[in-house]
Amino acid sequence: SNMVKVAVVGGEGIGPEVTAQSRRVLDWFAAKRNVPMTLREAQYGLIPYLATGKVLPEDTAEAMDEADAILWGATGGPETTEVPAAARKAGSLLGLRSKYDLYANLRPIMASPALSASAPLKPEVLDGVDFVIIRELTSGIYFGEPRGIETLPDGQRRGFNTEQYTTNQIRRVARSAFELARTRRNKVCSVDKANVLETSVVWREEVIRLHKEEFSDVELTHLYVDNAAMQIVREPRQFDVMVTGNIFGDILSDCAAMASGSLGMLPSASLGPVDRFGRRKALYEPVHGSAPDIAGKGIANPLGSILSVAMLLRLTLNRPEDADLLEQAVQTALASGARTADIAEAGAKKLSTVQMGDAVLNAL
Amino acid sequence: SNMVKVAVVGGEGIGPEVTAQSRRVLDWFAAKRNVPMTLREAQYGLIPYLATGKVLPEDTAEAMDEADAILWGATGGPETTEVPAAARKAGSLLGLRSKYDLYANLRPIMASPALSASAPLKPEVLDGVDFVIIRELTSGIYFGEPRGIETLPDGQRRGFNTEQYTTNQIRRVARSAFELARTRRNKVCSVDKANVLETSVVWREEVIRLHKEEFSDVELTHLYVDNAAMQIVREPRQFDVMVTGNIFGDILSDCAAMASGSLGMLPSASLGPVDRFGRRKALYEPVHGSAPDIAGKGIANPLGSILSVAMLLRLTLNRPEDADLLEQAVQTALASGARTADIAEAGAKKLSTVQMGDAVLNAL
Ligand SMILES: CC(C)[C@H](C(=O)O)[C@@H](O)C(=O)O
Ligand SMILES: CC(C)[C@H](C(=O)O)[C@@H](O)C(=O)O
Repeated sequence: SNMVKVAVVGGEGIGPEVTAQSRRVLDWFAAKRNVPMTLREAQYGLIPYLATGKVLPEDTAEAMDEADAILWGATGGPETTEVPAAARKAGSLLGLRSKYDLYANLRPIMASPALSASAPLKPEVLDGVDFVIIRELTSGIYFGEPRGIETLPDGQRRGFNTEQYTTNQIRRVARSAFELARTRRNKVCSVDKANVLETSVVWREEVIRLHKEEFSDVELTHLYVDNAAMQIVREPRQFDVMVTGNIFGDILSDCAAMASGSLGMLPSASLGPVDRFGRRKALYEPVHGSAPDIAGKGIANPLGSILSVAMLLRLTLNRPEDADLLEQAVQTALASGARTADIAEAGAKKLSTVQMGDAVLNAL
Repeated sequence: SNMVKVAVVGGEGIGPEVTAQSRRVLDWFAAKRNVPMTLREAQYGLIPYLATGKVLPEDTAEAMDEADAILWGATGGPETTEVPAAARKAGSLLGLRSKYDLYANLRPIMASPALSASAPLKPEVLDGVDFVIIRELTSGIYFGEPRGIETLPDGQRRGFNTEQYTTNQIRRVARSAFELARTRRNKVCSVDKANVLETSVVWREEVIRLHKEEFSDVELTHLYVDNAAMQIVREPRQFDVMVTGNIFGDILSDCAAMASGSLGMLPSASLGPVDRFGRRKALYEPVHGSAPDIAGKGIANPLGSILSVAMLLRLTLNRPEDADLLEQAVQTALASGARTADIAEAGAKKLSTVQMGDAVLNAL
């Protein structure tokens, strides 16, 4: 059938709360805009662990295996201490990224004028910021071998990990960056530490090679990762598409998220390879985590998850007008003053998670 | 003799220009405050390379070997392309850090109220920021083995590096952090990525162990590196002393430097182990680099280097009153409106490097 299969997995902490609002949004697009999709909800984390001994039970694994797109909530937090590390690891987010080969993690960074009061950067620095960080997600030091903890002859302990990239791993994520740049302002900035790391020397050489071979129409620049962290805070408007390895992308995207002043609002997409039917597995999730301190209180910001639905509409469903419609509805809700606690100015009225969902649905 | 030996090495790019102003300041303290030190100037970089075939000639190596403290300018930039990589490597800054075992790199981050107009963060976020990042400087992925570039059986190339820490390497830098915190607001935040890296698991366990054994009076917290990057931008006032590994410290300190709005003003100290005579080799340098684009123009900001002299007075010479005096003179110069181009508001008068040196000396 032509139906696109979406697995909806709220997970832990505030994940289920924010995902419930995205679910309402998905239902609206299915009903009102005839978006051809089937939704299947599945559980992840402590609750299925207590029932089945697995954080990721068979049923959830099956739902995710057969899905074209996974809408993911969040994982982690204090409650996870009730789950033994081995059970946790068996179904971890890192494991899923690896299992589905979700190598290209897209994190758009957008400044919302409506939120500049709650951002740490000055409005004149933030104004007009609009770039995408593409983080390589299935290699680098997160997955490199050998890794471990050993005891040395003198009794000391030593922890070690391997940072590594092969040319093919670099090429495919760099390709995603160049292709995305062509649909935007045509600029790619590649970030590495080639003045110190051999891994980065290969990274830079291969990005340059691919650029010469296939993307010489795109403007390509390079920054060392320390300088990149600085430039993201100093003058974030200079960037269009930034591409980097796994650990650098982890750090830089959180730095950029906060610079934009709206961590709770940022969406992400993690994309796998295109298969022989032209399909591309994808996992969509808000950039924020499980926020255990506010879980269950009904006050979390659902916009990061809702904007992840917009990415799903654009990238998996190929419905750019519907994606625009949803992003516009979010802006309308914000412009009308809708604020959850994390983005509210002092003294302003604070909406609950459900009320923010209402505000977006009303604007649709 | 009781004379403290200081080697003054301007190096490359703007290094010699800014260091010339620090040299004037050192001379002032020797003459007017009877600070017991001997100064020895030495060359580093392209100029000695052309004369001797070495970026770090014998004479300079000897001056640095015998010195208690090295006042370092900067290295790197386009001109270095005239020096073959092997010659460059033989005398590199990384090599010096390693040779003198300068494992504790202190980078104070201070917001100057006088500069808040040129900072990207809002004044209400910056106001009162005063913390120190201690970066481990002689281990981690910068020095870990094995490392290299190999060709795989399928013809691909692969770059690889080893991140690693032993318990002794962690303990000594964590000790520096706890000891420094006791002289300040008594708070240490240790930064790692223990949710992913075994190296960080050992890091965190050992920091906790040392804290329990010897420093339980100090408040200790832990952050993952991605969250730390975010918190430095969101609410930098929360930090007192932050301690972290080599590559994380590289990224976070540049991020923090820019958050403070005054990269050109930030000093640093890199400290080695205490020897059996109670002496501790140290290298002082501004956090900024060689800035080849403005080298030779006489417009670089010398305050990062001059404030490094204040650290030298405090840490190597044990002259806290003189360090305070110098820091106060810098604040006085700034308060009277002295600005180099990098920290000047639009339309304001811009001082040259020498004029900024004059302004500080006048304030002394
Ligand atoms: C939870 C953690 C393993 C994860 C990561 O480091 O990738 C998170 O920080 C993220 O960015 O998605
Ligand atoms: C020049 C480079 C090798 C160096 C580093 O990464 O340590 C610099 O960025 C620094 O922070 O001193």
